[in-house]
Order: sequence, then C-alpha cells, then structure tokens
Amino acid sequence: MAAAGADAYLGVRRENTRYLTGFVLGEGEEKVAGTSGWFLVTPDEVVVLADTRYAQQAAEECPDARIADVYHDLATRWPDLVAGRRRVAAEAGFIAQSTWSLLATAMPSLDLLPIDGWIESDRAVKEPSEVERVAAACAVADAALTRLLPQVRPGITEAELALALEWEMRSNGAEALAFDVACLAGPRAALPHGSPGARPVMAGQVLLFDFGAQVGGYRSDMTRTLFVGEPVERDLAVYRLVAAAQEAAIETLAEAATRGQSPSGRAIDSVARAVIVAGGHGPHFGHGLGHGIGLATHELPGLGQRAADEPLPWPTVFSVEPGVYLPGQTGVRIEDLVAFDPSVGRCELLTRFPREVTVVGV
Amino acid sequence: MAAAGADAYLGVRRENTRYLTGFVLGEGEEKVAGTSGWFLVTPDEVVVLADTRYAQQAAEECPDARIADVYHDLATRWPDLVAGRRRVAAEAGFIAQSTWSLLATAMPSLDLLPIDGWIESDRAVKEPSEVERVAAACAVADAALTRLLPQVRPGITEAELALALEWEMRSNGAEALAFDVACLAGPRAALPHGSPGARPVMAGQVLLFDFGAQVGGYRSDMTRTLFVGEPVERDLAVYRLVAAAQEAAIETLAEAATRGQSPSGRAIDSVARAVIVAGGHGPHFGHGLGHGIGLATHELPGLGQRAADEPLPWPTVFSVEPGVYLPGQTGVRIEDLVAFDPSVGRCELLTRFPREVTVVGV
Repeated sequence: MAAAGADAYLGVRRENTRYLTGFVLGEGEEKVAGTSGWFLVTPDEVVVLADTRYAQQAAEECPDARIADVYHDLATRWPDLVAGRRRVAAEAGFIAQSTWSLLATAMPSLDLLPIDGWIESDRAVKEPSEVERVAAACAVADAALTRLLPQVRPGITEAELALALEWEMRSNGAEALAFDVACLAGPRAALPHGSPGARPVMAGQVLLFDFGAQVGGYRSDMTRTLFVGEPVERDLAVYRLVAAAQEAAIETLAEAATRGQSPSGRAIDSVARAVIVAGGHGPHFGHGLGHGIGLATHELPGLGQRAADEPLPWPTVFSVEPGVYLPGQTGVRIEDLVAFDPSVGRCELLTRFPREVTVVGV
Repeated sequence: MAAAGADAYLGVRRENTRYLTGFVLGEGEEKVAGTSGWFLVTPDEVVVLADTRYAQQAAEECPDARIADVYHDLATRWPDLVAGRRRVAAEAGFIAQSTWSLLATAMPSLDLLPIDGWIESDRAVKEPSEVERVAAACAVADAALTRLLPQVRPGITEAELALALEWEMRSNGAEALAFDVACLAGPRAALPHGSPGARPVMAGQVLLFDFGAQVGGYRSDMTRTLFVGEPVERDLAVYRLVAAAQEAAIETLAEAATRGQSPSGRAIDSVARAVIVAGGHGPHFGHGLGHGIGLATHELPGLGQRAADEPLPWPTVFSVEPGVYLPGQTGVRIEDLVAFDPSVGRCELLTRFPREVTVVGV
C-alpha cells in the first residue's frame, strides 16, 4: 500500500476476505451477500462489512475487526467509511463497474486506485496450517475415489458416477466440493472442460475423473484417467506419455528442492511439454502444466508457457497436470498436487491415489 | 435499445445468456469460463463469445448465433466486434471495473452505456414452458422433503439433514440445487440466513428447511418449518400467525386474479405484514414478502415494502414467504411459489408440500 501511495485497501474477493479477516462466506452465498464480506483496511483498523444477517457471524469470526452494518447502502455510507483517506486501492477485477461508479461519485475527492493481485501474491505462499488443510482435502478425495471404484461398470453413466463421487466426498469429511466433479468417458475425455452427462460408460474406454474436496476452506484437485475393461493400445500409449511427462516435471522439482532451488513455472512447464512434444503430441497438450491451489481452486503460482519467468514462491502448493487430448477419440490427463519448499528440500505429493494404469469395471 | 439510442447490447450475466441465446453455463462454471457466454446483440446478428473449450457446445445450443472464439483477449478483439457501432448498452452490474476500463480504452470513440435490468424485466414475464419447468422443480422438492421426513429424529444434525435432502433432490430429478439447503433447528431458525451446522436436532424445537431444485435451468424455492416432537405453545402461536399472514396474501392474490387484476408487490407485502403487525410481531418480520424466480432464484418481480408500486407483471412466478424471527428463541417461515396470471384468473400454488403443522421425529 505504501509503495502505491494508498492509505486504505478495499477488498471484495471472498477468498481474500477469509484470508485476511477470517470471515467465511460459502461459494453459493456470494450472490446473496451483497457487500457483506467486503472489507476496508486502513493504517488504524480493519472494517468488515456485514449486514444484520451476518453480523453475529462476523463478530465471532473477526474479533479484531470493526463490523459495519452496510446493507444496500454502501454508496451512502462510503464517505464516512473512508473519511480522512486520500487514495484507496480497490480490487477492480471483482467490483462491478456500476458499483465502482457509485463509489467514485459518492466521494469525488477520493482517488480510487484499481489494483489486482496484491493479496493473491501473498496467498501463493502457504503457512504449514494451510498446506495441512490442502493435504486433508487430498486425503478425502483419495479415499472417495478408492471407494467409488467398485461402482464403475459398463452401463453406468458419467453423471451417476460424478454424483456418487461427490457424495463419497461430502459424506466423508469434505465440507464442500472444490468444483463440480468432471467424469468423462471415451472420446468425451478429449474435452478439457466437459461436463458429465447421461452417457453410459463402455468397456474399452478411458474414464477421466477431475475432482476435489474442500476442508477448512482449502481445496484439493486431482485427475485420474482410468481404463474401463481391457485398455486399447492407443489409449495406453497416450497414458504412458502423459505419465512420463508428469514424472519428468516432478523429478525436476524434487531435484531442485534437494538443491534448495526454485525453478520458474515456465521452466517446469517446458520440462513436461518437451516429453509430450517428443512423443509427437505437442499440439494435443493445449493448456498449462498447473496452477496454485488453496482457498481458491485456481490461484498463483501459474505453471505454463505464459507463466512468469521467475522462481516459484515457497512454501507453496500447486498442481502438475499434463494432458493429451485427441478430439473425437480419447483424452488422458494425470493431475497431482505438490507441496514445494526448497528451503527444507520438500517436494511432496499430497494426492496419493495410485498413478499406475488402473483397470476398472471388470 | 432504440429508446436508449443504443445500437448494440453487451450481455454477460449467465442467466441472460441462457435466456436470450440458449447457451448454458452451470453456476460453478462462471468463474472459469472467462468471457465465454458473453454475447453481443446488434441489429444484424447475435454473437456469442466461446473459447475453444466451449465452441462445440455453443454451436449446438445457439444455431442462429455467430460464435466468436475469444479467450483472454476481449480487449484486443473488441474494436472488431463492435465495428460500426456507436453506442453499446452493457450490463454494468456484472462487468468488473477493470474489464470495463479495458474495453473503454480499446475503443475510445465508442459510447459504453451502463444499463441494468433490461433483460431481467423481460425474464419476469414467463412463458408456459418456463412455468412448467419451475413447477417440475417444485415437484422434485416436494417429493424430496416427503422422503426425508422419516430420517428426522432427535440427535441427527442440521448438516446431515441438509445433505440428505440435497441427495434426495439430486438423485431424483434435480440437475442441480437452486441454492444451498438451509436446515436450521430451534433458536437457529431465527437466523434468516443461517447455514446448517454440526448441531443435533432436539425434541421440542422447530426445524426449518429452505431449499430448492433446478430442472431445465429453472428453480424452485420452498420453506417449511416443522416441529420435532411435541410443539411448544410459543412456537405454535408464531406458526399460526405466519400461516395466517401467508394465507391472507395468497387469498388476496387469488381474488385479484379472479377479477383479472394485478396488485403491486408492495400492496401484497402490506397485506401479509398487517397480519403479523396485528399479532404483535411486526418488528420480527425483517425481510420482504417474496421474489420472482426462474433462471435465477431471486429475480423480478419483488414483493416488499420497497418494491415498485405498480401492478405485478404477468404471467409470472414468485414466492410468498412471511416469517417471524425471535432472536435466541425460535423462528418460523413458510414459503410457497405462486404462478400468477390474472388474464386467465390463475393464482396457483406450485409447491404442494402440506402447510399444516407437521410433527416429525416421534
């Protein structure tokens, strides 16, 4: 704030609120909460906005903050809230243009500074308690997929399997999902963003699960591509290539950690990508290698061709998820979470479900 | 558009996209979709933005639209997209300030007109197929609560019941929830916005469920306040008062429909509120009487003290949900959905679960 000449910070992003103030808003609540959960940091105090619906919760969760009862009247209250301030940094990527405009009009003498990523950069660096919660979410997901396997058989639909996997997580330790479960069979696995449908799973297909749990606010994220019945050679070849690419990236990270070094997210992406390019599938790996994870499923640091060319921050947690997608035919992605801290030589997989070729439904 | 002098419309709100173009984005997808699902209407064509992840889906769901592959580069593509336009109306309540600013900079000669509620007003008026889908979602919710009742017993927790009710809906016809299930016991029912917790339900308490299903994109919303074991007289008295208030509002609507008239949302609120005020609990009914529902759980028209003083639009669907909340003691809300169309004398409850005093857990 000082470097930017700001004497206050207006935060609105749900994850940032939780990170800095402790006030918890569920994912579904954002749309109805209005400005509840927004917060203002000044050199003197932290103010958390919470209307009467949330006042008791905010008082309990934010004992050191002042709670301001704001309900549909932020613009009216704004001059009081920022009295004495000259320049307020505000999360412009998460405040609607109409609201921004109301605030600017309500206090024309104040400089509203649009900023991005300040708290997100802090969130990329994890405390031990944060890594532990990601690990706990990974353990819930590992166990859920293990329990699901006996239910996989030809004829069951993607949607049925996705719902069953969600149920396993949510009735065994997950307070919520990290994101909607993806379950995609056969050629549908070639869609990096497909949704499970009423399509029955068939023998000879791959079966891709991309899913995560939430524990204590922190998320997990894992992808496994299984084989329903006898694998076809084309799918096995792609699987081996993707597994080798992932292994190369993880090996490189482990060696760097042992030496106390941190590579860039771009460098690690290129290690995995080189394996896939050498295997002839470069054009079929269309996304980045991975992303940080924590209070949000996707956060800093990024691992990809367009990622920053500077060392990964540490301690941190991120995914390593190469994939090869053959449109109309098949797709394979293998995704694990890595806790990375070269200062103590740590490069540890938090997702533990086996990565070997796994045949189900027989 | 013509009245506002606009020659194009930039829509970004997920529900508006579905309503006008047919392109379906799930609730959880908004955060990862970027600008996919945004659309531009001009006198010549409808353009739907969809990056490669969504291109196939968009082509299938929007056969009459042109699909533009925009991925992290809207500002760069903006001048081409709006070439020849002078004034673009845009949904300023749903576009982040940082994005708005990028668009304004990318095409300074274009007038970006911040607008609100244009499509939402259209959405308040429902076609028969829309009402049918809301009714189908209500039927799923009715059946789910009926099946849940035998599971209610002292000792089970709010969170367990909420998850079980969600499961009943999602494994029996609901493609998604309309919103997270609220299940609140005893004094917690006094929180109009509480979340279910690890608190066991106890005999002698009220047990409030506020929940809804989604079918074909359309939502239901219903609240029932049940009694666990022998009701205490205080709770029964509050229940009777809230039921009488709801009944008065529904009667008034039915009579108006019979006469072919449409009262205002403010007038209907005051009918129910007068009953609660007369019962001595005016200060304990702190929210409006209801809200429209459709592709969004909360949409126009509004029924409340601050609602518009003009006739409700028709045909439409809205909730009627008076409540009385005694902090630290108890709370009662009864909520039903009404399909309202005075042009054909219709005032029909779409939620069918009984509204009589219901004792469970004995």
